[in-house]
Amino acid sequence: MFRPNGNYSLLQGSYLFSEIERRASSYISANPDKKIIRMGIGDVTEPLVGAVIEAMHKAVDEMGVKATFRGYGPEQGYKFLRDAITKHDYAVRGIEIAADEVFVSDGAKCDVGAIQELFGKETSVAVTDPVYPVYVDTNVMAGRGGEFLKEKGGFSNIIYLPCTQENGFVPELPKQRADVLYLCYPNNPTGTTLTREQLQVFVDWAKETGALILYDSAYEAYISDPEVPHSIFEIEGAKECAIEFRSMSKTAGFTGTRCAYTVVPKALKYKDDLGNEASLHSMWNRRHCTRFNGVSYITQRGAEATYTEEGRRQILSVVRYYMENAAIIQKSLIDAGYTVYGGVNAPYIWLKTPTDSWAFFDELLTTKQIIGTPGAGFGNAGEGYFRMTAFASREDTVSAMARICQRP
Amino acid sequence: MFRPNGNYSLLQGSYLFSEIERRASSYISANPDKKIIRMGIGDVTEPLVGAVIEAMHKAVDEMGVKATFRGYGPEQGYKFLRDAITKHDYAVRGIEIAADEVFVSDGAKCDVGAIQELFGKETSVAVTDPVYPVYVDTNVMAGRGGEFLKEKGGFSNIIYLPCTQENGFVPELPKQRADVLYLCYPNNPTGTTLTREQLQVFVDWAKETGALILYDSAYEAYISDPEVPHSIFEIEGAKECAIEFRSMSKTAGFTGTRCAYTVVPKALKYKDDLGNEASLHSMWNRRHCTRFNGVSYITQRGAEATYTEEGRRQILSVVRYYMENAAIIQKSLIDAGYTVYGGVNAPYIWLKTPTDSWAFFDELLTTKQIIGTPGAGFGNAGEGYFRMTAFASREDTVSAMARICQRP
Repeated sequence: MFRPNGNYSLLQGSYLFSEIERRASSYISANPDKKIIRMGIGDVTEPLVGAVIEAMHKAVDEMGVKATFRGYGPEQGYKFLRDAITKHDYAVRGIEIAADEVFVSDGAKCDVGAIQELFGKETSVAVTDPVYPVYVDTNVMAGRGGEFLKEKGGFSNIIYLPCTQENGFVPELPKQRADVLYLCYPNNPTGTTLTREQLQVFVDWAKETGALILYDSAYEAYISDPEVPHSIFEIEGAKECAIEFRSMSKTAGFTGTRCAYTVVPKALKYKDDLGNEASLHSMWNRRHCTRFNGVSYITQRGAEATYTEEGRRQILSVVRYYMENAAIIQKSLIDAGYTVYGGVNAPYIWLKTPTDSWAFFDELLTTKQIIGTPGAGFGNAGEGYFRMTAFASREDTVSAMARICQRP
Repeated sequence: MFRPNGNYSLLQGSYLFSEIERRASSYISANPDKKIIRMGIGDVTEPLVGAVIEAMHKAVDEMGVKATFRGYGPEQGYKFLRDAITKHDYAVRGIEIAADEVFVSDGAKCDVGAIQELFGKETSVAVTDPVYPVYVDTNVMAGRGGEFLKEKGGFSNIIYLPCTQENGFVPELPKQRADVLYLCYPNNPTGTTLTREQLQVFVDWAKETGALILYDSAYEAYISDPEVPHSIFEIEGAKECAIEFRSMSKTAGFTGTRCAYTVVPKALKYKDDLGNEASLHSMWNRRHCTRFNGVSYITQRGAEATYTEEGRRQILSVVRYYMENAAIIQKSLIDAGYTVYGGVNAPYIWLKTPTDSWAFFDELLTTKQIIGTPGAGFGNAGEGYFRMTAFASREDTVSAMARICQRP
């Protein structure tokens, strides 16, 4: 008799963005005349840049001709793209990453969700709170969550490291044993960052305790402050204790085009339960080859084009556009009397809400027709906060802020 | 202290196709003047058809213009594609599948590898032998394999159902408890098929015992015999006990473009370990939303084009071309004195080898410069057989067969 994985029944409610869509759709169908402005889900709105479009047209043409047609590519990604990544994302910052330490995939969400398959059974997982829900949910699905404790507002076996205005959104080191720590900087949802010195503390801790850091750096393109590291591998010792996730989604508008990559240094060595030394690089490679068939050739040519001089200039201009939106949001919210964080090195603005965060969501939706993301959806310590993003059009951003600044 | 998943160390050798590539590369670099013909890995060689190329160019253009740009799509796939699938792959055969029972993905390999995440801890898994290695390896990685037994030539907790010339490549029903059964028809690697009556036996068994059938139907486009079902859902009762995997890879040459889909009927209901009734449809949907971000919009428009009248005609003409190759291979191998199976409703030809199958691989590589796939790579019962595919060009197919028929 087949038995399904019971851990799924431990998951709490719907996936955050589905719940937002549910509430939004219900309001919209009841109020079809109202113009909704979406400042919530972290989706880009600017089209793909010219260099990417041109490269993808060329690749589509290649796929239509026998001499240049490509079937299965390398599971890990084409060398042309892995080389471009190591050169332009790492070597220019003085970081040496080999092309075969880069694994190209169809999304950072896929990789961030899959990485836990490399963990042993008894792995204790620590996350910052608030947190991108995928880190927790994928571990719960795999049976590492324990039970959901209402009074804790979280899972019994997950270690939550609160990030609030009280600690300046810098998590403390775990007080109990933590084998794995997920860090996301620039942070989703708070938009805050760590300096090199602050990140060094975590790397030193991981090396000392034998922990593994999973560093999600999907928003690094938005960093303007030179004190803020773009990669954890800028930090001394990180190659022996960290895996980094990067994405073209927010950097180059690839949310609907799907390309990302993960860097697994060969220096990452751990012993498994049986005492065998295991290379996470080999394990991830094995997983990639067994469960994945690579990213569309057309997409990889598009991604490569973001590393040309022209492509780089074009995507940076889009990033600048979004960060101007961020500045408008920040200023408007401050003018309207809110306390805000983030928005300087990240496309996310994290505001302190006067009421609880789902109530604030409903109020903003029904009185201002603005959709944002309630902080509680990202965890317990997100309660009392609300996320807005800089990805709407300039026009929508300005209109939304006008609605917010307007007295009722 | 972080501990990696020790199950990875139970996996046997390299992933089959990597091992083939290793031996091939080693021979090629030692013999750079020899012309190798690849009749091994199941990769297509004909370019994408005109209707697909046209649709993808149009989609690329849409992505470059703000008004038509698409960010995140539905994780489950765009409705335009799900509708085309239900209409042209199911409704035309009298099978009623709802659009929301179809989950579009970037590859059948990904879905086939991921499905085991929905299984409970103690699930017993049955596979045919020989078998596509992904079914077994993904279960071993998740800890369901037990230990590898040399004398069994397989994993202690996996139930192997031999398919050989003795039973006409039709597996017997499992003799011990099996919660899940993977079936692949038309079969990879043997190229053999089941009739409706033969498949009905498995569906009846699954319904009687409460088992789940995972039906991989990636090669259905190659079926010519009207007695052979294209979908397990042609069989009475299958919606209550089966999930079906399909792919555009072999149907439309998408191996480097990446699009597939999985059908999870809503009628699939089981009880989990805690006694809760669980819908596999809801679980798969939850997994998809949590761990996946959908397939590239451009790819989905390309896949949609394979369902237009023009697209359908074009892809069927490519399928016909490959099946003419299959006929050439079959006839030549018989002429050369081999016993062969498959190749009528599948692009795979399964030949009986005079020596052991890796020895035959090495011999064919070094004396005829032909790369095929040794049957032992697909499991114990594959020993003594060898897979050739119909995906090479006509010219290469004819040359390879000439080499084989030539006396030394």
